[in-house]
Amino acid sequence: MRRNMTIAPHPLDEAIRLTPIDTNRFAGHTSPAYWGQVAPFGGVTAATILNAALLRPERLGDPLTLTVNYAGPIRPGPFEVETRLMRTNRSTQHWAVQLVQGEAREVMISAIVVFAVRRPTWSRTEARMPDVPAAAACPTAPRGRDMAWLERYDLRPVRGRLMQPNPDSITHGWIADHPARALDFPALASICDAFFPRLFLLRPTPTPIGTVSLNVYFHVDSATLALQGSAPVLGVAEGQVYNAGFFDQHGQLWGEGGVLLATTHQIVWYKE
Amino acid sequence: MRRNMTIAPHPLDEAIRLTPIDTNRFAGHTSPAYWGQVAPFGGVTAATILNAALLRPERLGDPLTLTVNYAGPIRPGPFEVETRLMRTNRSTQHWAVQLVQGEAREVMISAIVVFAVRRPTWSRTEARMPDVPAAAACPTAPRGRDMAWLERYDLRPVRGRLMQPNPDSITHGWIADHPARALDFPALASICDAFFPRLFLLRPTPTPIGTVSLNVYFHVDSATLALQGSAPVLGVAEGQVYNAGFFDQHGQLWGEGGVLLATTHQIVWYKE
Repeated sequence: MRRNMTIAPHPLDEAIRLTPIDTNRFAGHTSPAYWGQVAPFGGVTAATILNAALLRPERLGDPLTLTVNYAGPIRPGPFEVETRLMRTNRSTQHWAVQLVQGEAREVMISAIVVFAVRRPTWSRTEARMPDVPAAAACPTAPRGRDMAWLERYDLRPVRGRLMQPNPDSITHGWIADHPARALDFPALASICDAFFPRLFLLRPTPTPIGTVSLNVYFHVDSATLALQGSAPVLGVAEGQVYNAGFFDQHGQLWGEGGVLLATTHQIVWYKE
Repeated sequence: MRRNMTIAPHPLDEAIRLTPIDTNRFAGHTSPAYWGQVAPFGGVTAATILNAALLRPERLGDPLTLTVNYAGPIRPGPFEVETRLMRTNRSTQHWAVQLVQGEAREVMISAIVVFAVRRPTWSRTEARMPDVPAAAACPTAPRGRDMAWLERYDLRPVRGRLMQPNPDSITHGWIADHPARALDFPALASICDAFFPRLFLLRPTPTPIGTVSLNVYFHVDSATLALQGSAPVLGVAEGQVYNAGFFDQHGQLWGEGGVLLATTHQIVWYKE
């Protein structure tokens, strides 16, 4: 589209942009557009990690798994992403990725990424997409003013009320990049961290929290993902246990035509 | 107990035994007692990875997360486990761990482990343990003869029939080390990989499969885990999607008194 040729790049593309330093290393910079409470939104950091591996020319196939461990709070400013190819097989390829900052090369993120070549097989989606109204019929939630990254998503909650007591932590809601952007693997990885923290659905009390580890399984190849365009995805999420300072949550991201694009899990530290 | 002082060590302890080489490296050896189809049982490999980090004196608190990526099939014989401390915070500690083999130090396993100090907080278990008969009332399944590791577990299926068509992939079943052994974090990690592959519950057709990535979230500290003793745990597992060569599965491991000890996820390659 002509219009896209003249406007500024999407803020997500700016936020995850990396410049090669040498074969293994890339330079990046935090983006105010995706800032969180004390560090960048974890989703955009996951997208940056994935982007680094995607930029390596040796990359095999499409992303299959992404595990991002948040070791320390990334400071505003420049950072480096180091990628290390551990092994390439016929169908899978394993990478170790780190994000470091400062003279001391302090490790802020420790991650592993697996790429895979998909082949036609017997296939079935066992999980069921919830029966919800179309995104167009659901009002957009007022955007959060306390964290910049909340303005980068169009969130349309369907089930579950944030910071109010709920009978359970299950939520259904439509989500899309704002402004709209065609969905790709980095954008999908980022959305995997955009679920409301489950703790705040069960106990509506503000308390410090922070994701310790985020895990994403991608279930489609890039050709299938491209069919999604910029249509919103349906997010489904739930927690299982909140115990002694850590809770978990798992989620599904459903695309057009009821395709399960990704499943995700994370474990989150909370204070009290 | 005097008796334990004179008998041979438990086969799990033999299988995960590591000898320090230097500060970061340990020497180990594959165990015929936990051999699988073409490589060691993935659970015992996960337990070995965790054991390496547990053996490091700098270790902080108890295991919180374990992500094990199976990069290549471990060959029978010796291996080395390399541990690297990435970062220590007040409540969490991040490690990178690799298992390598041979002169070329070929990477067979790439893993990350997080330890954490737990503190008393508001806590709740949202997931519900299924209402099933006590383990003592459930017959032990005949042990598999085709893979040694299947003889290392006492499996008591309650719901779901392997290699028969089922309406869904949900299984409930009791599991314990065989012979009995007090449950600790390595044993719990190993059990996280002992669920039947979900594919074989939906499609009872033998086909080559292999775990690509296993993720474990531990939800209790070592004092709570110690209360379990050698009692069986209840495993609950389900798959979500089987597509183009890869399927996922997630599971829960419930301990005595309905305590959710761990949750686990994995993504598995399958051939056709």
